[in-house]
Amino acid sequence: MKLIYFFDEGNGKDKKLLGGKGAGLCEMTQLGLQVPPGFVITTQTCKLFFENGNKLPDGLMNEVRMSIKKLESLTGKKFGDSSKPLLVSVRSGAAISMPGMMDTILNLGLNDNTVKGLASLTKNERFAYDAYRRFVQLFGKIVLGIDDGKFAEALEDLKRKLKVKYDSEIDVKNLKNLVNEFKNLVKVSTGKSFPEDPWVQLENAIAAVFNSWNGRRAKDYRREFKITPEIADGTAVNIVTMAFGNMGNDSGTGVVFTRDPSSGERKLYGDYLPNAQGEDVVAGIRTPMPIDELQKQNPAVYKQLVDIAERLEKYFKEPQDIEFTVEQSKLFMLQTRNAKMNTVAQVKTSVDMVHENLITKERAIIRVPPEQLEQLLHKMVDPKSTAKPFATGIPASPGVATGKVVLDADQAEMQGTTGNKVILVREETKPDDIHGFFASQGILTSKGGKTSHAAVVARGMDKPCVCGASALRMDHAKKRIKVGDLIIKEGEIITIDGTNGNVYVGTVPTVQPQMGGELLELLSWADSFRKLGVRANVDDPESAFIARSLGAEGIGLCRTERMFNASDRLPIMVQMVMSEDEKTRKEYLAKLKPLQKQDFKELLKVMDGLPVTIRLLDPPLHEFLPQIETVLSQIQSLKRTEAYKEEIREKEMMLEKVKRLTEINPMLGHRGVRIGITYPEIYEMQVAAICEATAELMKEGMNPKAQIMVPQVASEKELQFVKDIVQRTKTIIEKQYNLKLPIKFGTMIEVVRGCLVADKIAEIAEFFSFGTNDLTQGTFSFSREDSENKFLPQYMKEGIILDNPFQSLDKDGVGRLMQMAIEGGKGTDPRIEIGICGEHGGDPRSIEFCSGLGLNYVSCSAYRIPIARLAAAQAAVRAK
Amino acid sequence: MKLIYFFDEGNGKDKKLLGGKGAGLCEMTQLGLQVPPGFVITTQTCKLFFENGNKLPDGLMNEVRMSIKKLESLTGKKFGDSSKPLLVSVRSGAAISMPGMMDTILNLGLNDNTVKGLASLTKNERFAYDAYRRFVQLFGKIVLGIDDGKFAEALEDLKRKLKVKYDSEIDVKNLKNLVNEFKNLVKVSTGKSFPEDPWVQLENAIAAVFNSWNGRRAKDYRREFKITPEIADGTAVNIVTMAFGNMGNDSGTGVVFTRDPSSGERKLYGDYLPNAQGEDVVAGIRTPMPIDELQKQNPAVYKQLVDIAERLEKYFKEPQDIEFTVEQSKLFMLQTRNAKMNTVAQVKTSVDMVHENLITKERAIIRVPPEQLEQLLHKMVDPKSTAKPFATGIPASPGVATGKVVLDADQAEMQGTTGNKVILVREETKPDDIHGFFASQGILTSKGGKTSHAAVVARGMDKPCVCGASALRMDHAKKRIKVGDLIIKEGEIITIDGTNGNVYVGTVPTVQPQMGGELLELLSWADSFRKLGVRANVDDPESAFIARSLGAEGIGLCRTERMFNASDRLPIMVQMVMSEDEKTRKEYLAKLKPLQKQDFKELLKVMDGLPVTIRLLDPPLHEFLPQIETVLSQIQSLKRTEAYKEEIREKEMMLEKVKRLTEINPMLGHRGVRIGITYPEIYEMQVAAICEATAELMKEGMNPKAQIMVPQVASEKELQFVKDIVQRTKTIIEKQYNLKLPIKFGTMIEVVRGCLVADKIAEIAEFFSFGTNDLTQGTFSFSREDSENKFLPQYMKEGIILDNPFQSLDKDGVGRLMQMAIEGGKGTDPRIEIGICGEHGGDPRSIEFCSGLGLNYVSCSAYRIPIARLAAAQAAVRAK
Repeated sequence: MKLIYFFDEGNGKDKKLLGGKGAGLCEMTQLGLQVPPGFVITTQTCKLFFENGNKLPDGLMNEVRMSIKKLESLTGKKFGDSSKPLLVSVRSGAAISMPGMMDTILNLGLNDNTVKGLASLTKNERFAYDAYRRFVQLFGKIVLGIDDGKFAEALEDLKRKLKVKYDSEIDVKNLKNLVNEFKNLVKVSTGKSFPEDPWVQLENAIAAVFNSWNGRRAKDYRREFKITPEIADGTAVNIVTMAFGNMGNDSGTGVVFTRDPSSGERKLYGDYLPNAQGEDVVAGIRTPMPIDELQKQNPAVYKQLVDIAERLEKYFKEPQDIEFTVEQSKLFMLQTRNAKMNTVAQVKTSVDMVHENLITKERAIIRVPPEQLEQLLHKMVDPKSTAKPFATGIPASPGVATGKVVLDADQAEMQGTTGNKVILVREETKPDDIHGFFASQGILTSKGGKTSHAAVVARGMDKPCVCGASALRMDHAKKRIKVGDLIIKEGEIITIDGTNGNVYVGTVPTVQPQMGGELLELLSWADSFRKLGVRANVDDPESAFIARSLGAEGIGLCRTERMFNASDRLPIMVQMVMSEDEKTRKEYLAKLKPLQKQDFKELLKVMDGLPVTIRLLDPPLHEFLPQIETVLSQIQSLKRTEAYKEEIREKEMMLEKVKRLTEINPMLGHRGVRIGITYPEIYEMQVAAICEATAELMKEGMNPKAQIMVPQVASEKELQFVKDIVQRTKTIIEKQYNLKLPIKFGTMIEVVRGCLVADKIAEIAEFFSFGTNDLTQGTFSFSREDSENKFLPQYMKEGIILDNPFQSLDKDGVGRLMQMAIEGGKGTDPRIEIGICGEHGGDPRSIEFCSGLGLNYVSCSAYRIPIARLAAAQAAVRAK
Repeated sequence: MKLIYFFDEGNGKDKKLLGGKGAGLCEMTQLGLQVPPGFVITTQTCKLFFENGNKLPDGLMNEVRMSIKKLESLTGKKFGDSSKPLLVSVRSGAAISMPGMMDTILNLGLNDNTVKGLASLTKNERFAYDAYRRFVQLFGKIVLGIDDGKFAEALEDLKRKLKVKYDSEIDVKNLKNLVNEFKNLVKVSTGKSFPEDPWVQLENAIAAVFNSWNGRRAKDYRREFKITPEIADGTAVNIVTMAFGNMGNDSGTGVVFTRDPSSGERKLYGDYLPNAQGEDVVAGIRTPMPIDELQKQNPAVYKQLVDIAERLEKYFKEPQDIEFTVEQSKLFMLQTRNAKMNTVAQVKTSVDMVHENLITKERAIIRVPPEQLEQLLHKMVDPKSTAKPFATGIPASPGVATGKVVLDADQAEMQGTTGNKVILVREETKPDDIHGFFASQGILTSKGGKTSHAAVVARGMDKPCVCGASALRMDHAKKRIKVGDLIIKEGEIITIDGTNGNVYVGTVPTVQPQMGGELLELLSWADSFRKLGVRANVDDPESAFIARSLGAEGIGLCRTERMFNASDRLPIMVQMVMSEDEKTRKEYLAKLKPLQKQDFKELLKVMDGLPVTIRLLDPPLHEFLPQIETVLSQIQSLKRTEAYKEEIREKEMMLEKVKRLTEINPMLGHRGVRIGITYPEIYEMQVAAICEATAELMKEGMNPKAQIMVPQVASEKELQFVKDIVQRTKTIIEKQYNLKLPIKFGTMIEVVRGCLVADKIAEIAEFFSFGTNDLTQGTFSFSREDSENKFLPQYMKEGIILDNPFQSLDKDGVGRLMQMAIEGGKGTDPRIEIGICGEHGGDPRSIEFCSGLGLNYVSCSAYRIPIARLAAAQAAVRAK
């Protein structure tokens, strides 16, 4: 096995073997660019190192010695030589860039002898000893594992003694003393002398870089960013001849992007620091200048750099992030890699590069991460603002909202419906807080994650939401929030940013991004590639309008229960639920019908000509009643006065009903189609409202396309029961209006058994829509709310589950059930329409999976529509 | 299509076409027995009748006329004739016997003319008119739909007027008047005269019998007993010449069983009533005598009857239930059918008939319904007792228990552990009532069904339980129960019978049935046929001992959490749960370990040499803490006194913890392996206890075979995590004891996803055990507790679900998942052991399904072991 590749022989495409940095150096060398001579020790060697009990594999150092010899002959310098010493940097570099996670050692080869050579070569003794003391410190810290604080302390002591402020004010003599003091520190800390032998330095440095792969930081980073061994397995080590940017004003060092990483504009963008090594920038002693400075100081080198940038872009077909050093007007390239850019730049460069004939439209589509598009669609904190957040939580629903703090839903409603802007702040929310959501600008919770109740509902309503801001302490008695020493009272104004999870005191200036021309162009290309349709999960005409403008091709899920929560309907709904017989229930349902019909008409109008899938009532009826504790405390406070006998009796009846309806596992309880079967009059009312809305719009010359969808179906007989209701009702209304109503009938597939008997269900349904939220719960036996707070974090930490299955579809489990359902359904009816309306419908990876399954469409919340369009296009492109 | 079969031509094997009664009459006629001439109108004709809009099909009455002609020539009588009138009975008879559900009309053909012929033929005018008035009443009620009460009233008026007590005291003259009054009643009620024309009578009677198939009673009965159209579809009508058992002392009527239906003894058993028609028995005017009476009165006929009984048994290979009439010393057979017997008799006759070479062992096994064996194993109310129940509920766990009423679990524990026998009476029970179960003789609830918490837990503990005794009104304030006007105070003694659901005041005498010789013999045959192993779900040594004595071949499920609920452990467990860090938790676990080890040792000892499957902790930890309401009220009462500051603080900490642990859907919450992963120290303790128990028993020379089973596994990585714990712990203890521990490691398959990734799980598990209770919940998204109270009854009524899936395995859904799991598991490891330990493991139909799936064993509660052995044998026999 070949352990070492020189830059002129390594295959620059093989990042897995050579690491990203090594591969880039090979590419540049072989492109004929000026790269300081050097070589790569492969990532495979790193694996051997670990297999060998964290020891360098046999023979490696022999090869390294031969390679250093080759460097010596290429540079005319000599490793360990006191007149013309060869110095090298030892840099880590894995297949995936992990900025700051692993170690780099500069100026290796310095010792008491070679430092003199460096001094004479650079004609700068001070620089040489400064480099030397830095090398001892870096080596001591990284290779020998000595607490960096000790070196820093020694340096500070010296500066105090010399009464100077900056390192650069220390003279050569004192630097020499400092070197000795550092070496002494090494001796005291490790019991051994600092290794003067450059070969020992090199051997230990290589081992240290390998070891840094399994350091705590690196491991945490890999887990966080899901870098599995398939993606990157071990680090390479790059041994590179040092080039010196600090050899006078014709030298310098810099970092440039080939395009502006925040706007995408096509021009060199970056920093340049004359007469300096890269380290000086890091140390913060001198402030780098814009790259234009190089153009002024050294136009020839600048021109060279511009040319190289263009060549590299043409070669890599990606904007590049380049490190370079100028040593006495000679340009050395130290690194090139694909530039990390913000979303605006990502979109603009994608579109620009297509127009420049640099990349294809397919490539343009692939290179934009769909998830990030969300940033382009929501109001965001003005990048110029200097406001500092006082707390941070999980960004659960994007956008910025500002308002008065309110600590309960009733208060939110009272304030919100009387013209105040409020932010509902809770430990966590429950279904009976829903009226508070309607009245609020945004939601902030101290518990729960991206799929907590607050998050899901807020996303559904497209309201900004920050969840799990765990620093918040709620004090309901005193009606205030504490964060450390900070106290925020109910009524004070805060701002939440659901895009990044920040929470600010007061109002923070915001800007509203536009769907810019480039984004529209990119999405139009996406539409031409994708095979999946994209629909929206929306419940009201306003959201529907937004969804349509963002490219929704219909509504994939309208949750009718949300309509009952509005303040003019909830009291009627409560009385309906409280009714003890069918007759009374029907009376209240009759009052709800015209309201529902109006809702449906408005929705169908906005989506005229496009399918609108309306789900019949799903949640258990007790969700419309207050909770036991609430009623109990209402009764208690009523009892304080003698006068409220009647009211108390009413509340006690409600208490009795609430108790009777309470369920041990509401998720698996009396809900969905089970309500439709036990109280058919409820579904009958909803179906009639849909039919009448359709009929009236048709009379007005419109083209409504309602689809009636039944939730929680586990068997074909349940669906047939509801279908009978639909057909009966439809027939009556068709006669009444003398029309044929083009209403489709179908079902959610969200119960495991529904997947298993999909063949039979397809005999009755015209369409399926996967409800993957519930399906995931049933498949794992994980309750979403309970699991995300209680054990999922531990599961992810232990690597038992890689992705939260409520965010990204579990392919092995849920995916397999979906596949069975599709086979069953299409086996019965090859033309059955199949979509997905669970939260996964807006998750790019899940969308790719759905595309592979051959679904007809995905449905997601309005602001995720562009994401879904792009993700669907990526799936189609990748499938090619 | 042939609509009518004479008894000498119908194929007696074709019960579906001829009905049970008709087929029996054909069989007997063709065997040469004396049967009154007659014919059968087929069940197909009944279907034609309904297809024809409830009208007799064309041509039927022509065929009937021709058949009556044939009867006339066979009997020498004439239909409608005034001298020698032919009278017939019109009897219903479906493929399945539905006693009392459909209608029969006797003496059809009587009118003002023919009644005279009957009088002269029988030389008994009073009898003739008595028969006539009864016929008018029966015809009026059944065929004409007149309220029977009106006839009864008229009769009572007459008796009052005559000042007589019995019908038989009415003389001929008054009987004639009564006939006229009845006819008048017909005229007034229907607006038409009573039909004198026998043909009109016959036509209407046939239609009425057909109609009775769709009567309310018959439909309810069919739904209750799951008689689908595949089993019986319509009723046949039997037209039979009347034979008269009331023509003097040489006549009579009787019903006999060929063997004693309650003991199984081989001798004629039944009733005989001289000089009477069957109706007289029903009317309750005269008390029938034992059949021996016939032997005294008419030894020749008795001998004939004994011979016929033997012939019929030989022919049908089943004990028979025979109706006969003796008309002037001539024996007429009116019906024969397989005798319904109690379980004792069913078992005894099965074994006897094998010894008599009447049937094979296979047949003996098949003919005993396994479900009924349970009756033979539990204490039962002495059949001689005359005690009357004051309430009845659902028989949820068999056996009889007597004790003082206690209304809450704490009280039960206090009383029960101080030497009192108590019955825990609740609306319904919850997991935190469990300590009350331990201390009680039996459990009675007013809500919930066969699979409610109370029922499941009681069955697991083999304690008698009656659920859903809805007449009970609990009055906790006054500490008493009301049933109507009856008041039972806490402390009063009641008796519950979990075999039939009866509840009695006071103590009721009981008898303990024995596993008699015949049952042991039958089960030994069953063992020789069955392929499925049978193990027990038991948690303590006592139950294990019973299970082993009932034939258990090991323990399929030991629920370790039950061990933590004993009063000496629960406080430690609570403190363990309350611990906020691993160190404290481990301290309490260390206290629990020796107790668990002792539990396991005892269990393994009882089951020495047989596998003992121990499930690691499964329920969510909050189940070990009291409920929020309880802690709240404890705090409130503590606060009444100043003194309890420390106690209040403790309770408030507990409240905080309970709140933190509370889950929205505990069924899908932090439980099973999820606990093992978040608190590995808990599983570690349990595994160590199992390993040490095994090691110590081996040192004592025993042969313990523990199997460690992990609950709630959804992915192979979860299982691997626990396997690592097991291997680590095992290795340490093996070293410690210098032994190789023969402990197997496997998993429950009770989460849907577990079925889907069974191939991967089988790489880690040595055995699977299906937990079909949870699997059913996950598959349907039905919470067991919630669904059985809220919508399942409606589902069953609407026919959306035919069987409660928590009682009998859902083959299409859950069964399909099981099949996938088996294929996956065996694909990876063909020799993997697969069993079932859900409640379905004791359900005969589910056992048959499991046998078909090729499972290795079923596991069920101790007292269901014989049932499972028999059901498994039946499955094997049927599969042949």
